[in-house]
Amino acid sequence: MASSNNDHDQVKGAGLFQRLRGKIVKFGLMLKKLGQDDPRRIVHSLKVALALTLISMLFYFEPLYDGFGIAAMWAILTVVVVFEFTVGATIGRGLNRIMSTVVAAALGIGAHRLATLSGNQGEPILIGLFVFVEAGIVTFFRFIPQMKARYDYGLLIFNLTFCLISVSGYRDEEVIRLGFERVSTIIIGSCTAVTVCVFIRPVWIGAELHNQIATNMEKLANFLEEFGDEYFTVSENGQIRGKSSSLQGYKSVLASKGSEDTMANLARWEPGHGRFKFHHPWKQYLKVGTLTRQCAFKIEALNNYLTSETQTPQEVKSIIQGPSVVISSECGKALKQLATSMRKMTKSSSNDPHIANSKDAAEELKAVIRSSLCKLPAADSLHIIQEGAVASLLFEIIRCTEKIADAVHKLASQAHFNDVKPTVTPNQENSVNDGPHHVIAIE
Amino acid sequence: MASSNNDHDQVKGAGLFQRLRGKIVKFGLMLKKLGQDDPRRIVHSLKVALALTLISMLFYFEPLYDGFGIAAMWAILTVVVVFEFTVGATIGRGLNRIMSTVVAAALGIGAHRLATLSGNQGEPILIGLFVFVEAGIVTFFRFIPQMKARYDYGLLIFNLTFCLISVSGYRDEEVIRLGFERVSTIIIGSCTAVTVCVFIRPVWIGAELHNQIATNMEKLANFLEEFGDEYFTVSENGQIRGKSSSLQGYKSVLASKGSEDTMANLARWEPGHGRFKFHHPWKQYLKVGTLTRQCAFKIEALNNYLTSETQTPQEVKSIIQGPSVVISSECGKALKQLATSMRKMTKSSSNDPHIANSKDAAEELKAVIRSSLCKLPAADSLHIIQEGAVASLLFEIIRCTEKIADAVHKLASQAHFNDVKPTVTPNQENSVNDGPHHVIAIE
Repeated sequence: MASSNNDHDQVKGAGLFQRLRGKIVKFGLMLKKLGQDDPRRIVHSLKVALALTLISMLFYFEPLYDGFGIAAMWAILTVVVVFEFTVGATIGRGLNRIMSTVVAAALGIGAHRLATLSGNQGEPILIGLFVFVEAGIVTFFRFIPQMKARYDYGLLIFNLTFCLISVSGYRDEEVIRLGFERVSTIIIGSCTAVTVCVFIRPVWIGAELHNQIATNMEKLANFLEEFGDEYFTVSENGQIRGKSSSLQGYKSVLASKGSEDTMANLARWEPGHGRFKFHHPWKQYLKVGTLTRQCAFKIEALNNYLTSETQTPQEVKSIIQGPSVVISSECGKALKQLATSMRKMTKSSSNDPHIANSKDAAEELKAVIRSSLCKLPAADSLHIIQEGAVASLLFEIIRCTEKIADAVHKLASQAHFNDVKPTVTPNQENSVNDGPHHVIAIE
Repeated sequence: MASSNNDHDQVKGAGLFQRLRGKIVKFGLMLKKLGQDDPRRIVHSLKVALALTLISMLFYFEPLYDGFGIAAMWAILTVVVVFEFTVGATIGRGLNRIMSTVVAAALGIGAHRLATLSGNQGEPILIGLFVFVEAGIVTFFRFIPQMKARYDYGLLIFNLTFCLISVSGYRDEEVIRLGFERVSTIIIGSCTAVTVCVFIRPVWIGAELHNQIATNMEKLANFLEEFGDEYFTVSENGQIRGKSSSLQGYKSVLASKGSEDTMANLARWEPGHGRFKFHHPWKQYLKVGTLTRQCAFKIEALNNYLTSETQTPQEVKSIIQGPSVVISSECGKALKQLATSMRKMTKSSSNDPHIANSKDAAEELKAVIRSSLCKLPAADSLHIIQEGAVASLLFEIIRCTEKIADAVHKLASQAHFNDVKPTVTPNQENSVNDGPHHVIAIE
């Protein structure tokens, strides 16, 4: 439309062409942005392409079994469905696929033999019955939450393989060959996918979870560090507050539960890599995540007062301003330091001074509220209530920050993070504070 | 362990046996509970079993192509992977699978022909190149958010089919036959799955979304209806408050975003059924869901004060008690009526009196705060602040409830819900209130 506005002489076809070109350019830019936002997406696409080309060429040049057919097909199919973005997801799918194929193939062969024993008349009836019973049970098992979390794909493949093998209608020897072919090609396919996934620029989902938890803390910290200035000073201009991106970042934390649970489940499939050991305390990450989310809920409530239309007069606000700004920014700093020490995988107690500062400020704020807030004219009562609500939320946020700090310290000792200053003798007071967590961790 | 405590004479084997039996019984009880919680799970398992038995027997008795083999395998495979719990998910997977197989098979045959034209030397190189380029591009497309939401499975199958067909290494006629077989068996499998899914006790994901949105509103309503009594009266006993299940129900609403988005995406695949037309306004459901979730965040903040350890003395609480209880319970009633009218799919303005009542109570509460809260002794200031925060949250909840009501009214007119009293002339005042939404809806 825009293109034909200026030039009315243009033939319609050219306008259509330009519009199409515009769309293609827009699509191209979108693809470019996708790649720039996370270059690992491009790497992943190339990795999948490589794995598929490898497995295709393997079967093209060197048919493992007599003639091309079912065998190569299953291997290619396996690579396509098993290869996921992260190592954990790929290994999880691969193992699920292999294990359930082995078990189901064995059971399928057994069912087939049992059915053939009953003679020509009984065979189809028995096979139909076996398939019905097996499919019903396995499908129902997929509803068990613990199964669904880690073995859902395995149960699906179990269903599949059992039906394929038992229904095949071959003679016994052929059924065994079919089962063997299926198992071996699926192993070849899974190994190809896992090998390419692990050895070329791997994306470890455990590291992703680790980083996401740290990032989420930083998002909360960004909000808290800016909140004080934003709430107490800019309001006079009458402009809409709280719209800057660093203030809105915390919103994504509110809905992070699902992705964190999935990541922790998949991380358990990953072998040890770098600083992450095989039995890394993934559950403790989920605890830190839950506490971070609870803190985000409080921040969501705080954000309300930031964006609310009813503005408190500056003279009421200024009463609580001093200590409130300190609480908010000190909690922000504490969270930021926790996030940093998590990223560096170091044990740290350096956040304690910030929390202590914020607690001091909280006492000050309480004193201010006791002494002066209710001395304001009664007309200001509602504003007093709003400022009181802000203060009350800030107290909650201190409590949350403390809980997060405790959980991160516990994580640091469970996951054997480095001591930050190994040459200096540990500060006795700090180590006493951390005491109980260390004890729990050693168990 | 418990079983061997009483009877020391027992042989170890019997103890082990009893322990095993205990575990089996426990597992059985868990399965029973799964089925009782949602009997549709049992129905679904039987449906999958039926569909698989049907397709297995079809190919067992009547091999569609010369000899059993690839053909039947693909059909069985299709039933297993396409059959999902809900109609929307099953149709979505089925259509994705069919469409992408058709397009990829055509492209694969083309690529194969192009490669064979280049002679024996060039063929494998060209095929490898085609597979690499196709797999790279399609895998990258899976990162496009709009694609991922609805066509992720289709892109996976596209990858798969293209490789299978182009790599197969057959002569041209055979490749075409392979493509045709794959397409036709996948259509047979998908149709079997969809037919059984739709015609035997179908679970419509659109209806699930509809009910979940209503249920979530009811959960908030339950909290609000009980909150007043719980917060203001029971506290004296010193027992822990806010632990009853109806008060904790809202927690699941906090993390409902992901599942609602998925449901709305899948609901679009479903044909019209009952009161749900093909172009049912699923997006508006998501808006209602978002507002409900925002209200749940406020309730989470309110719940904090319910469970907090610092107890406000009753004389401070009693100042705000009257209007607070009214606001909370009236908002609860308003939400409950909205949920009920959604369930019945009727247009309703009957919630307005409740919102009006809560607004009156809010004015009263503001007056109470203005006149008396700050007259308390200064020692109570901090408690005053806490009660002020509760009052402030209640004001927010009124605002949220109003927004939810507006969104539900808009949904009711977009989705053509029934008028609740078609014989009575519409109340002019109410319809004026609803005016702008009706106008938007008619567009």
